Amino acid sequence: MNKEIFDYLASNRSKHLEELTKYLAIPSISSLPEHKQDVKSAAKWTAKALQDAGMENVKVYETKGHPVVYGDWLKQEGKPTVLVYGHYDVQPVDPLELWDTPPFEANIRDHKIYARGASDDKGQVFMHIKAVEAILRTTGSLPVNFKFCIEGEEEIGSPTLPQFVEENKKLLAADVIVISDTGMQGPGKPAICYGLRGLCGLQIDVTGANSDLHSGLYGGAVQNSIHALVEIVNSFHSPDGKVLVEGFYDSVQEITSEEREAFAALGDIDEELKEQLGVSELHGEPGFTARERTYVRPTLEVNGIYGGFQGEGIKTVIPAKASAKITCRLVPNQDPAEIADLLTKHIYANVPAGVTVNVSLFDQGHPYVTPLEHPAIQAAGRAYEAIYKVPTAYTRGGGSIPIVAAFDQLLGLPVVLMGFGLSTENFHAPNEHFHLENFDKGLETLCTYWYELAESL
Amino acid sequence: MNKEIFDYLASNRSKHLEELTKYLAIPSISSLPEHKQDVKSAAKWTAKALQDAGMENVKVYETKGHPVVYGDWLKQEGKPTVLVYGHYDVQPVDPLELWDTPPFEANIRDHKIYARGASDDKGQVFMHIKAVEAILRTTGSLPVNFKFCIEGEEEIGSPTLPQFVEENKKLLAADVIVISDTGMQGPGKPAICYGLRGLCGLQIDVTGANSDLHSGLYGGAVQNSIHALVEIVNSFHSPDGKVLVEGFYDSVQEITSEEREAFAALGDIDEELKEQLGVSELHGEPGFTARERTYVRPTLEVNGIYGGFQGEGIKTVIPAKASAKITCRLVPNQDPAEIADLLTKHIYANVPAGVTVNVSLFDQGHPYVTPLEHPAIQAAGRAYEAIYKVPTAYTRGGGSIPIVAAFDQLLGLPVVLMGFGLSTENFHAPNEHFHLENFDKGLETLCTYWYELAESL
Repeated sequence: MNKEIFDYLASNRSKHLEELTKYLAIPSISSLPEHKQDVKSAAKWTAKALQDAGMENVKVYETKGHPVVYGDWLKQEGKPTVLVYGHYDVQPVDPLELWDTPPFEANIRDHKIYARGASDDKGQVFMHIKAVEAILRTTGSLPVNFKFCIEGEEEIGSPTLPQFVEENKKLLAADVIVISDTGMQGPGKPAICYGLRGLCGLQIDVTGANSDLHSGLYGGAVQNSIHALVEIVNSFHSPDGKVLVEGFYDSVQEITSEEREAFAALGDIDEELKEQLGVSELHGEPGFTARERTYVRPTLEVNGIYGGFQGEGIKTVIPAKASAKITCRLVPNQDPAEIADLLTKHIYANVPAGVTVNVSLFDQGHPYVTPLEHPAIQAAGRAYEAIYKVPTAYTRGGGSIPIVAAFDQLLGLPVVLMGFGLSTENFHAPNEHFHLENFDKGLETLCTYWYELAESL
Repeated sequence: MNKEIFDYLASNRSKHLEELTKYLAIPSISSLPEHKQDVKSAAKWTAKALQDAGMENVKVYETKGHPVVYGDWLKQEGKPTVLVYGHYDVQPVDPLELWDTPPFEANIRDHKIYARGASDDKGQVFMHIKAVEAILRTTGSLPVNFKFCIEGEEEIGSPTLPQFVEENKKLLAADVIVISDTGMQGPGKPAICYGLRGLCGLQIDVTGANSDLHSGLYGGAVQNSIHALVEIVNSFHSPDGKVLVEGFYDSVQEITSEEREAFAALGDIDEELKEQLGVSELHGEPGFTARERTYVRPTLEVNGIYGGFQGEGIKTVIPAKASAKITCRLVPNQDPAEIADLLTKHIYANVPAGVTVNVSLFDQGHPYVTPLEHPAIQAAGRAYEAIYKVPTAYTRGGGSIPIVAAFDQLLGLPVVLMGFGLSTENFHAPNEHFHLENFDKGLETLCTYWYELAESL
């Protein structure tokens, strides 16, 4: 490891932040068809950045959906090969009026950079690119071999990447996958996430009468689609927060006393969470701490609900249609397809009188746990400790990166989730931002890691 | 009564429909601030039409809200004075994509005129204007005296009209109020509605965390505002359709066996309703027929619900806010303010853990029942029978015209609800329309009524 690398990072900091600002300016919202061209532009931008950093065989692979960007550097014979995965697509930005500065005009204030994608995940993809650039420019080589696979559909559940991986197993063959798309424990507290929750999404559409109706003429005589939807949605949980869908918890790997102790040792986050979120009390499955609930317990969340009149004042209407969007977070050994089945059965078994119901299935992703003792994970822990000067926490993650499980199944590789985000950074919400402290230290950590890894695998 | 009047109506039919088309072209949506000028234009149009019909002292009275249009003809000394009330404002038109032709471009097809306001209530206001015009142009006089009071805020609960009436008691003094804003029993079946339900509207706003949250990072640990809202909304009804708000039914005047028999004699509408609305079963308070539920039983309907993501696909968010819009239909002797209190108490008593809730009160209107045996009502029944050649049905109405109760309280006048709409005409919904058969017969009925009334009061 070479001091010149850190000097390079320090002296190029302004230039790097200017480049990142341009990257963040591309509104690559993968879920909205009107941003298709923007997603493509972000792919091209990523490819160009990889090329400029010294990667070879850089290519934008077209898929049925948004493109995958690939680039490699394979000149270190006998050394391990790292597959760096990330995503250049971002979440939608609504409600726009809650952003203090425009989501696609990065704004640096108070040592943070504010923009959609700053933390999740363009900012962290950018760091990976700049880390290899720094090492190559200062030393003329890299300590390990690299393959970059940066996709554009992570925020919509990576629908086409598994097929891409399947068809390009040789291209993507490596010894370890490294992903920076998770969070740290808190400011100054590095963490390696060794498990992720899975995902299962669906939508319920309720239809009552064949038209919106005047509530005076028909009110009381006909089922209201909102009432029916609410009845279904309310049947999902007990008031104290347990999921009531039959069989939902059947495959859940129960928390062990070792895990419980390890999580407790990470500290109680309940009070901190309450203050951070501005709520008087937390709410969730009884018998578990907030950390346990987000690490090792599954959830069923309604992400959106709509039906009838939403304008100002009132409209005396009985709406014909009402809908709810739902995602479950899953833990080992829940199977997304099986959970989708259980939910669908539950919904159809609870259809109120006088309406018809349709269930549409959306994204699914398997939960995943990595072996904590894997040398690639331990090397990552040492890299963090060298830069942050505190012990690395080994955690589980509440979020889902469906592709992690797919990589596991398709390539059979260990995955190191080495994130630099903070949970307060409003991913998926207005005013997303990224702490520049972790931009700087993260770059140094990544550079350190590649040298640690060269000696570990 | 003069055959020339009917000839006049017949020979001017095309001209009248052209005029009505212009009236319906004005998007006078009183609930949407962006249509304020359109509402004003509709007021001016109404005033001009009254003037052209031969009314005198025509004036557009400004109010704190939308204007009131007045005009009179008081040359028949010794004869009763009729106050004709109606409204020139209309409901919003969303969802726009469900309209077969644009809502503000009247389209005549299959003997119906399609447009927002065609039936509720511009079409019927227009008929009243054309009826007096027809009599005046053919006979040079009118059988009774007239005062027109046409407002622009009926669809938002007539917030300023009571004050206008209070301040203009002398101007509006009359012997009877006639309103055409209710429906007939069915095609060819005239009806006089002798009672209306009242109204009580409110909105529930639920707030959880101080920002939308990533469902992976926080899912399971914090209350979801949609779950909390759904829990509250679901507490309003039993699954079989009874309102569970404590005290809600306490003041309800129970249906008498006479009423029950009278309603039964009007025929069972359940099967007809099911077919018309395209539902496999009706749904409502147990122990009552659909007719009884809409005539004499109160309701609580959610008119709109919204929170979180509404776009295509999924967004893994825990929304910070969720809202529901609610209106109750009230029957004698429920008091809107008291019901609002009961609902508010119920909501605040059922706030789930981890959220705050705010209740905003909206429109309120008293329920109203007129004395069925009043000569003005009986004369209206005879006028219908003379034109439609079938017995007139005496019904109760499920809708609310809050101003009816206000007129009763402020002016102490009997109210004759003489409507020409049909319940299938999609008031408040896409593809609102009005049957031209009832436009033609309705005009003749009104003309006949004024001569009947001249002899009855």
